[in-house]
Amino acid sequence: MKRMISVAVATMIAGVSAFGMSDSDLVKKATDAGLKAIPQSKLELLKLVDNDKNPITNCKVELGKKLYFDPRLSKSGLISCNTCHNLGMGGADGVGAAVGHKWTPNPKHLNSPTVYNSVLNQVQFWDGRDPHLEAQAQGPIQAGPEMAAPKQLVVDRVTTMPGYVAEFKKAYGDDVKITFELITDTIAVFERTLVTPSRYDAFLNGNPNALTDAEKTGLKVFIDKGCTACHNDIGLGGTMMPFDGSKYDFAKGGFTGNENGMVKTPTLRNIEETAPYFHNGNIWSLATAVKQMDKIQLQNNITDKETEQIVTFLKSLTGKKPNISYPQLPVITEKTPLPDMN
Amino acid sequence: MKRMISVAVATMIAGVSAFGMSDSDLVKKATDAGLKAIPQSKLELLKLVDNDKNPITNCKVELGKKLYFDPRLSKSGLISCNTCHNLGMGGADGVGAAVGHKWTPNPKHLNSPTVYNSVLNQVQFWDGRDPHLEAQAQGPIQAGPEMAAPKQLVVDRVTTMPGYVAEFKKAYGDDVKITFELITDTIAVFERTLVTPSRYDAFLNGNPNALTDAEKTGLKVFIDKGCTACHNDIGLGGTMMPFDGSKYDFAKGGFTGNENGMVKTPTLRNIEETAPYFHNGNIWSLATAVKQMDKIQLQNNITDKETEQIVTFLKSLTGKKPNISYPQLPVITEKTPLPDMN
Repeated sequence: MKRMISVAVATMIAGVSAFGMSDSDLVKKATDAGLKAIPQSKLELLKLVDNDKNPITNCKVELGKKLYFDPRLSKSGLISCNTCHNLGMGGADGVGAAVGHKWTPNPKHLNSPTVYNSVLNQVQFWDGRDPHLEAQAQGPIQAGPEMAAPKQLVVDRVTTMPGYVAEFKKAYGDDVKITFELITDTIAVFERTLVTPSRYDAFLNGNPNALTDAEKTGLKVFIDKGCTACHNDIGLGGTMMPFDGSKYDFAKGGFTGNENGMVKTPTLRNIEETAPYFHNGNIWSLATAVKQMDKIQLQNNITDKETEQIVTFLKSLTGKKPNISYPQLPVITEKTPLPDMN
Repeated sequence: MKRMISVAVATMIAGVSAFGMSDSDLVKKATDAGLKAIPQSKLELLKLVDNDKNPITNCKVELGKKLYFDPRLSKSGLISCNTCHNLGMGGADGVGAAVGHKWTPNPKHLNSPTVYNSVLNQVQFWDGRDPHLEAQAQGPIQAGPEMAAPKQLVVDRVTTMPGYVAEFKKAYGDDVKITFELITDTIAVFERTLVTPSRYDAFLNGNPNALTDAEKTGLKVFIDKGCTACHNDIGLGGTMMPFDGSKYDFAKGGFTGNENGMVKTPTLRNIEETAPYFHNGNIWSLATAVKQMDKIQLQNNITDKETEQIVTFLKSLTGKKPNISYPQLPVITEKTPLPDMN
């Protein structure tokens, strides 16, 4: 304790902190580099994550949560959104390539991206083909190697459970027509609430004690080395498609991005919780991922120490998750289409 | 409203209820038939579900919950206890035969029994081979067609996550040795808390208004027809092995019970939520299940009306589930054994 105080006093006397600048200068440096915090104000946050076409309400969020956790939205009745985007595991699945219906690995060897803060992404999917969560949610439910459920099957499952019908009426009015698109829109409403403010946000929002000196040093290195060229804005990623897959020798799988060979920059929030890394899930060590990204994208040849400093900062992005009460799902009826394992 | 009051008045005048006896006589009839309620008193309930060898504490329950929801206890990293015993779906999976590692159906075409109230079972597994939840939890984690994880893999996964190690120390003391058996014992502690009191219990415990007249009628028929010969005690099942599998022409699978051809009588609590029915999961309609059981076991040839009355009663057994806050699971390290899909 005595020693810590001495260091602090020495730092104050010298007029510089351990990370070489004042806290407010570091915040300015981060802002200038395009980094933004999750707003502290609930109203500001709502403005950011809400969708005019389908505004967030408590009823929709509760219903969307049930649908998100319901494996009966898959052909087999065994796979839910939460299977690959596990809210207890950083919003991802912790395996290299996603595995779905009939134990099929993703044919492009794609890793499941986190659902947390996905509302902050300007594009969805690794190839960035959809801008909205509403559209994203439609994909994996239908995809053969994921949940493998045709639209009509999903609608038939949901509409034959009176518990769901009652909740859709509560959320959208008695005249509601429960379509596949309304089901996925409602899942997206729930997903819009999955934002995880971290100590990093508290620091950018003006609390200098929210980060340790080591984390502040890491933030400075992160900016100095140019990581913010791609990992910027509120999500520290999710804004652009800069990764030219053709440059990189993929160890597994043939996915090299969209038609231009581009792969979406993923968010770095909760990155500590979402190994393995990269769109092909081939890298299990965060330090290795940082070093490889530097080598491929920035050619700084960062040292082990700098890598460690950046990793220390990245761990401060682990955010507070919304408390999710595990939902009790509606009961099937004799009209509900049966699970189909084939 | 007026009509309902008139009926009630008429019943009072006649001195008998719609179900042919007084409420207190019906409670006595149920008790005489071997039916028991979940105790209202928390202390009495704790006495019932606790285990002297590994007493329930909050720390163990929270840790057990994490382990229960953690797919990294399976070889693939994709299947958790909750996959087949889904706490949002009556504690079961809603499919005929359980499906596990590599999409393998249970080789005996066995249906996943509910985990809710399983602490009230006097025997575990369909063949009744284990008396305790502690022993039961060891089975599916290791079984090839279920979670397929050797003991040592489970221990290595858990002990390489510092978050788990810290929680085991908190639960069992700093000298704790984290063995496979301690992991499954801790899961069992969580499972011991999964008891679901229902309106039926409130009725047996002395609240005559907890059941409707139709439900009381159903309870009376349930007893009169002899269902309580097997579905008795607190669990309305789970106490005996009366079903001689050899009597029954199983449509699928070759499981005919234990060495004596016996299959455990399952609990009827939350039965509305746990279709499909029977140990082979071949029957999707509760009414059909009731009728078939009557035919096979009791030979009453019950009518459609009696079947419906019993089903109405059975739905009153749907209980209040403990509120489960979805757990945030510990983060892996570079030492944690990787998922293995093969």
